[in-house]
Amino acid sequence: MRFLITFAYNGSNFLGYQKQKQGRTVQNQVENVLSTIYNEKVLIHASGRTDARVHAYNQKAHFDVEKELNVDKLKNSMNKMLPKDIYIKRIEKVHNHFHARFDVVRKVYQYKINMGEYNPLEYDYVYQYNHSLDINRMKKAIKYLIGEHNFKSFTKTDEKKEDYIRTIYEITITNKDDMIEIEFSGSGFLRYMIRNIVGTLIAVGEGKIEPNYVEKILKMEDRTKAYKTANPEGLYLKDVFYK
Amino acid sequence: MRFLITFAYNGSNFLGYQKQKQGRTVQNQVENVLSTIYNEKVLIHASGRTDARVHAYNQKAHFDVEKELNVDKLKNSMNKMLPKDIYIKRIEKVHNHFHARFDVVRKVYQYKINMGEYNPLEYDYVYQYNHSLDINRMKKAIKYLIGEHNFKSFTKTDEKKEDYIRTIYEITITNKDDMIEIEFSGSGFLRYMIRNIVGTLIAVGEGKIEPNYVEKILKMEDRTKAYKTANPEGLYLKDVFYK
Repeated sequence: MRFLITFAYNGSNFLGYQKQKQGRTVQNQVENVLSTIYNEKVLIHASGRTDARVHAYNQKAHFDVEKELNVDKLKNSMNKMLPKDIYIKRIEKVHNHFHARFDVVRKVYQYKINMGEYNPLEYDYVYQYNHSLDINRMKKAIKYLIGEHNFKSFTKTDEKKEDYIRTIYEITITNKDDMIEIEFSGSGFLRYMIRNIVGTLIAVGEGKIEPNYVEKILKMEDRTKAYKTANPEGLYLKDVFYK
Repeated sequence: MRFLITFAYNGSNFLGYQKQKQGRTVQNQVENVLSTIYNEKVLIHASGRTDARVHAYNQKAHFDVEKELNVDKLKNSMNKMLPKDIYIKRIEKVHNHFHARFDVVRKVYQYKINMGEYNPLEYDYVYQYNHSLDINRMKKAIKYLIGEHNFKSFTKTDEKKEDYIRTIYEITITNKDDMIEIEFSGSGFLRYMIRNIVGTLIAVGEGKIEPNYVEKILKMEDRTKAYKTANPEGLYLKDVFYK
């Protein structure tokens, strides 16, 4: 039987989502708890990984087990056993052919930037940029990123992939006083892609580059042409959608 | 010369504001930085202390030094030397007779409660109550607390004071979805007073006691009659005002 879990986590004290040989990861914590409950080795398959210090409001992952437990009781047991920085929001039974990663049709990420003075209450939750940005310029730059593109200029430098093509459905930039929120909705995102796009949007907002230069960066298909990778703590996996 | 500093801090990793023989406190961090900069022992006198894990948006404290430094440069130097969980927002020269504690005319505190499901992103910043509360009942209870009262029922059990009289000018309860914010404005507050009032307001919101029972608790002048002390992480010192 296959089950899908929806869970939130605070990335501040994790080396990232994905299991590693050493160090505290989200995947490891969840697998350990499930393995204890089912008394067998349980592996989880997430919609994708998130990097160290990146947060999730709604990450999704599936797992296979032989025993069927009541999902509400399972949720309560997991939450009792998990550390305070992970919380299981929902568990549902899914079809045997469902796959939490391959069946994704849309993912939504959010990125938060503080343009105001440094705030010691949110250093783990908002990128403390602490300078003003021209949001209208940033909004003009967005349109070049929407749609299907080769995003090689915006992925991790040493990331070797067969396919750098992704589709961004929508990007919205809103601000409330000094807090900017940028929301990305797309078919999927390459490693570091959102943080690299945000770094480039910041360069646009600073006036370092013109909004339409973003189109040129995309076309060069060269990571060295884009700007600095924005900090991880401002990034949130907001939601994952399936067919 | 006397200077007044306005500063914010994240209380999560402090044993509280006030200096102790051992352990990490806000006062200690700020005094150490000032003593290094001025190359003499500098003591700070705050508007009041805050307990372990309680936050401050705008705490105020004064200090006396012989050398006059440019306040903007001093602010920058302090922020460079302070840990990431304290931030100096403003420094101003004040009269020699000004006192950061004795001259307070009004203090404003905020308390945040999450009625919705547990949120691992805010365990250090919002009291994770995670059940619904009847906000209208809580609003009815407020009126008994406004004005000048003996708040002995709402202070720390073993707090021996000559004077338990304080004046609350205003209490407002607002909510946005599942997030409740209670704001207290008063002449000053006794130790644990706000957290004890919040605990009792929660008992009202739960339906355990009637709104007007708050008046009876006040009149009994007995700490054992009030309800549980609400968690520290939901409490913020928002502002301090002087004549």
